[in-house]
Amino acid sequence: MRLVSAAVELCAEQGYDATTVPQIAERAGLTRATFFRHFPDKREVLFAGQAAHAELLAAGVAEAPADASPLAAVACGLGRLAGSFSPEQHGFGVTLATAVAASPELQERDAAKSAGLVVAVRDALAARGVADPGAHLAAELGVLAVKTGYAAWSRGDDDDPAALAAHLTSALADLHAASRALT
Amino acid sequence: MRLVSAAVELCAEQGYDATTVPQIAERAGLTRATFFRHFPDKREVLFAGQAAHAELLAAGVAEAPADASPLAAVACGLGRLAGSFSPEQHGFGVTLATAVAASPELQERDAAKSAGLVVAVRDALAARGVADPGAHLAAELGVLAVKTGYAAWSRGDDDDPAALAAHLTSALADLHAASRALT
Repeated sequence: MRLVSAAVELCAEQGYDATTVPQIAERAGLTRATFFRHFPDKREVLFAGQAAHAELLAAGVAEAPADASPLAAVACGLGRLAGSFSPEQHGFGVTLATAVAASPELQERDAAKSAGLVVAVRDALAARGVADPGAHLAAELGVLAVKTGYAAWSRGDDDDPAALAAHLTSALADLHAASRALT
Repeated sequence: MRLVSAAVELCAEQGYDATTVPQIAERAGLTRATFFRHFPDKREVLFAGQAAHAELLAAGVAEAPADASPLAAVACGLGRLAGSFSPEQHGFGVTLATAVAASPELQERDAAKSAGLVVAVRDALAARGVADPGAHLAAELGVLAVKTGYAAWSRGDDDDPAALAAHLTSALADLHAASRALT
C-alpha cells in the first residue's frame, strides 16, 4: 500500500517525529483526505499490518493438524505469517525498529500490537481445546518468536521470506529450549 | 497517594471516560495545578505504580540467592512486589480492570506497562548472568504471573497481601507447569 511505503521511507530519511501526514500523503501522491480515510493518524500507518498479522497467525493455528501440540500449532501460525511477507518488506523492520526505539509513543503502540497478537493466538488455541495458562503461554512464546525472528530477518542480508520463516521457527525452538532450563 | 485513590474511586463510580482531572483534584482536596505537578494526564494517575513495581521486581530478582534458578529469582521478585501491597489496594485491581476493559486507550497503556515490567525483570536477570532468550522468557512468565495472580487476588475476598503473594507464586508455578506440556 502506497501510504505505508511512503511513511516508512520518510521515517527512514528524517525520523518519525519530523514526519507529518501531509508529507506522507504527498510522497504517496495522494491527498490528506485520502490518508485520513485509511488511517486516523501517522502512528497507525506504521502498524497497518496488525489486523492482517493477527488473522494470519490465528488462521495458521486453526489449520494445524488436529493432533498438533500447542507449540506445533503456533509454529503453523508463524509459517502462515511468514508466507504473507514479500522481499520488499525486508527493510521495513529496521526502519520501524529505529522509529520505535526513539519514540515512547510508538513503543506504547508496539506493546499494544504485541498484546493484540497474543490475544489472537490464544483465542485460536482455545478454539482447539488448549486451556489456559497453556494457551496464554504458547501465544506469548509465539509472539516473542515473531518479534525476535523478524528482528533477525530484518538485520540479515537475505530478504527472501523463506529466510523469515526459518528465523521464526528457530526463534520459537530457542524459546522452547530456554523454557526447559528455567529451574 | 490521595490523587490515585480519588481517581480510582471516581472511575469505579462513573467510569474512566466520564472522569476528569478537575474532578479527581477536587475529590482529593487538591488543585489542578497540583495534579499536573504529579501526572501529565488522567491516564497516568491509574498507572502511578509502574516505576515502583518495576523497581521492586528487579530488586527481588537481584537479591535472590546466588544459586537460584532464573525462575526462582523471578519468584523472589514477585515476593518483593507482593510485600509492598497494602490491604487498601485490594479493590484497586477490580476497578482498574473494569476501566481497562472498557477503554482501548487504557489497554494500550496497560500493554506498555507490562512491556516495561518485562524489560526491568529481564535486565535484572541479565545482571545475574542469565542469557537471552531464557532471561526474556523468564521475565515474560513473571509478568504473566503478576497479571494473573493479581487478578485472582482482586477477585477474591481475602485482602491480605499474603494472599496476593500466594496467588503470584501459584500463578508462576502454573505457568511453569504449562510450559512443560506445550509439545
